[in-house]
Amino acid sequence: MTQPGRIYGVGLGPGAQDLMSVRAHRLLTSARHVAFFRKAGRMGQARRIAGDLLPETAQELPMEYPVTTEIPFTDPRYNDCLAEFYSECIERLLAIAESGEDVVVLCEGDPFFYGSFMHLYTRLQDRVPVEVVPGITGMSGAWTATGQPVTWGDDILTVLMATLPEAELTRRIRETDAAVVMKIGRNLSRLRRAVSEAGRLTDAWLVEYAAMPEQRVRPLAEVGDTAPYFSTLVIHGNGRRP
Amino acid sequence: MTQPGRIYGVGLGPGAQDLMSVRAHRLLTSARHVAFFRKAGRMGQARRIAGDLLPETAQELPMEYPVTTEIPFTDPRYNDCLAEFYSECIERLLAIAESGEDVVVLCEGDPFFYGSFMHLYTRLQDRVPVEVVPGITGMSGAWTATGQPVTWGDDILTVLMATLPEAELTRRIRETDAAVVMKIGRNLSRLRRAVSEAGRLTDAWLVEYAAMPEQRVRPLAEVGDTAPYFSTLVIHGNGRRP
Ligand SMILES: C[S@@+](CC[C@H](N)C(=O)[O-])C[C@H]1O[C@@H](n2cnc3c(N)ncnc32)[C@H](O)[C@@H]1O
Ligand SMILES: C[S@@+](CC[C@H](N)C(=O)[O-])C[C@H]1O[C@@H](n2cnc3c(N)ncnc32)[C@H](O)[C@@H]1O
Repeated sequence: MTQPGRIYGVGLGPGAQDLMSVRAHRLLTSARHVAFFRKAGRMGQARRIAGDLLPETAQELPMEYPVTTEIPFTDPRYNDCLAEFYSECIERLLAIAESGEDVVVLCEGDPFFYGSFMHLYTRLQDRVPVEVVPGITGMSGAWTATGQPVTWGDDILTVLMATLPEAELTRRIRETDAAVVMKIGRNLSRLRRAVSEAGRLTDAWLVEYAAMPEQRVRPLAEVGDTAPYFSTLVIHGNGRRP
Repeated sequence: MTQPGRIYGVGLGPGAQDLMSVRAHRLLTSARHVAFFRKAGRMGQARRIAGDLLPETAQELPMEYPVTTEIPFTDPRYNDCLAEFYSECIERLLAIAESGEDVVVLCEGDPFFYGSFMHLYTRLQDRVPVEVVPGITGMSGAWTATGQPVTWGDDILTVLMATLPEAELTRRIRETDAAVVMKIGRNLSRLRRAVSEAGRLTDAWLVEYAAMPEQRVRPLAEVGDTAPYFSTLVIHGNGRRP
């Protein structure tokens, strides 16, 4: 019997190619099979970061999200549709691993931090050897872009998704020292109301495309009504400092 | 007048040398002056990660913390003593930069995330060009070591220091989906009482020396009464997942 191959979930960091780890770089430049998520018709951010590092002979396996915009998020069919998609993905990955070859799965940021790879990981983990390479998170890229440290002393940092209800966002932002908010996109106006209600509007920075060529940092108060998918809000802590 | 040199605060990641970024690797292997914090008589974790990557000709500048254990943390002299130490450090760094040479300051994890470099950064930032290279945090190393994703869907992640009062730790752990607790060391027993009081003892993992040769992962309930400085507690979230 063939020794099964290994599946690597590889964090590529926030955007700039040279912010991936040396370990990730080594895995990418020697990969034979490379899988990555993308939306239909798009390149996919993880694939974009990998850029020209992949060997020319590498087999690429794009995993295209099913179009789900016509199904509301709360409809059980939304979850069913994704679950079916993830099952198909792992069948493709398992087929390669079972033939004895390794597969590198490209992940934005850190794979275990709100990453899509986690949905493959939990389905693969008892069937084939899986290894995860951590990465620099998008939020590290974002606070670095603001030019100010995010947390000091015993500051509390709260990480929130802008998809949470407005009252929950308000309460959480009011009660923390430092905050990071992700998945902003269409939730920007709601998020701004919550930050404002929590009394933190003048402390809040919106970072778009951290560590990418289009990187932009602005006070939240000065931003219009939309933000791209790759946007992160940063509210810095003010803890004890000698 | 000489063009001033640049000071780089370089994140080296959680421990394994190949988890530093490609950018960090490039800066280290070409550095002429390399500064790092350490306790008197110790090597210093950041210097340990850099290992044999520094050129033999590099000038090393250890910055040794003044011995502060005899001054209680709450005594104003504690802060004065550290403030004086940081002033001395930046004078040494500025002297090099003003002579036109760059200095690489080695940082564990990510420099802007509870890092000592931040104390130099705020003092240097208006005097000389300073550039920060983000890194993989110790907490990413820790949750990767547990083999389970830390946050799903719209989970809330709370990052806490074990130096906080017990009641505060309890409340925060009770009210969050996922939690990370750092700076554990002598606060381990108090932290365990707080986790237990919050009803999360069976979900809590203690990770010692993440991504280092001594890495160890144990259920918090099975840990004795002490933990090393490089310990992080991880409580995973359980958010929505298809
Ligand atoms: C599904 S989460 C994936 C997070 C990723 N695993 C990480 O470790 O950063 C996607 C969210 O991360 C944030 N994000 C990731 N990379 C970013 C970047 N370069 N700039 C700004 N935000 C980013 C955005 O808020 C985006 O909506
Ligand atoms: C002063 S903070 C510095 C954090 C660092 N800047 C980072 O980004 O991870 C030190 C704390 O980080 C945590 N830590 C850092 N590296 C770690 C590792 N490799 N394993 C476990 N904990 C770690 C420990 O809780 C330690 O007390």
